[in-house]
Amino acid sequence: MNSRGTQPDRIDHFEPKERKGLIVVITGNGKGKTTSALGMAVRACGHRMRVCIIQFMKGDLYSGEWDGIKQMNCAIELHATGKGFCGIQGNPYPWTEHRDNAQDALDLVRDRMVSGTIDLLILDEINNALKLKLVDLEQVLQILRDKPPGLHLVLTGRDAHPQVIELADTVSEVNEIKHAYRAGIEPQPGIDY
Amino acid sequence: MNSRGTQPDRIDHFEPKERKGLIVVITGNGKGKTTSALGMAVRACGHRMRVCIIQFMKGDLYSGEWDGIKQMNCAIELHATGKGFCGIQGNPYPWTEHRDNAQDALDLVRDRMVSGTIDLLILDEINNALKLKLVDLEQVLQILRDKPPGLHLVLTGRDAHPQVIELADTVSEVNEIKHAYRAGIEPQPGIDY
Repeated sequence: MNSRGTQPDRIDHFEPKERKGLIVVITGNGKGKTTSALGMAVRACGHRMRVCIIQFMKGDLYSGEWDGIKQMNCAIELHATGKGFCGIQGNPYPWTEHRDNAQDALDLVRDRMVSGTIDLLILDEINNALKLKLVDLEQVLQILRDKPPGLHLVLTGRDAHPQVIELADTVSEVNEIKHAYRAGIEPQPGIDY
Repeated sequence: MNSRGTQPDRIDHFEPKERKGLIVVITGNGKGKTTSALGMAVRACGHRMRVCIIQFMKGDLYSGEWDGIKQMNCAIELHATGKGFCGIQGNPYPWTEHRDNAQDALDLVRDRMVSGTIDLLILDEINNALKLKLVDLEQVLQILRDKPPGLHLVLTGRDAHPQVIELADTVSEVNEIKHAYRAGIEPQPGIDY
């Protein structure tokens, strides 16, 4: 079950003159935000960097990355906090409970950020949490300002706040051109969850 | 060095009424296309699906996913074919050599596609290869038409061809809002490569 493949016979290694921890924002309404952050985790893993993923909006619905991450022989941790999407039909939890959960997740972020044990910290769907007021703008901005210089911080989720974008180094907006669900195709394992 | 973290106490599992192999296109000029495909590999790995990644444009410049993938205890293979970006300043190989490489990569795609041993097949930067005429539109369309119904096929790279988009189920366009390199920051390991 192990990985295999082919690589070039001779491999060149780039090294930037200066290593700098970046703030990366992946926003927009299209598919590929959380998955992009997961891909950065794979890359970081290849560089023997230490990764922590904190998922703000995940509920109890299984997503493949929970087990995928466990299969990685890397210094990587994933915390699926939260109670699912606040305000989405069928979600039974009151706003205050969502808020309490998100605030606990922020405590975890602050802890990991200053721990010195993490090189890449991914705040998955924190943009949504901010939009839903589960966390406050000032709290998020404070995290961005307090980021240690060497730490990479990735923030995902639609509706990224303009002031978050302002402080970021790299921002991508993932726009939906087409989505299978609009053709009546249900979410598929490995692709959508 | 192993993974750890927290998940909900109780986990619900969604299963679509019908499993269907999707064609997913991730295009646009922003950061997060290859990384998104890598993230789908992590998800698929969690579902114990078998993954094959064929990189069309990778040259001999090291990218973290090459080792990251090796750290995954999954049925996953990655082939970095190609000689780097054709036409980019400093690339020493003639177009014909790029074309030969891309054609070999297409042979590999066809082989894996009909092998029955792959659930998720990622054609990384094949859109660029098509744009540069290293592969022909008709060749790519034929692959899309020949795709076994259960196989997921992911095509990444900027400038996706309209006819490829036409045949796809899910298409995301990743647009650059900001990029660190425009502020003079060199590519950083774990984030950019």
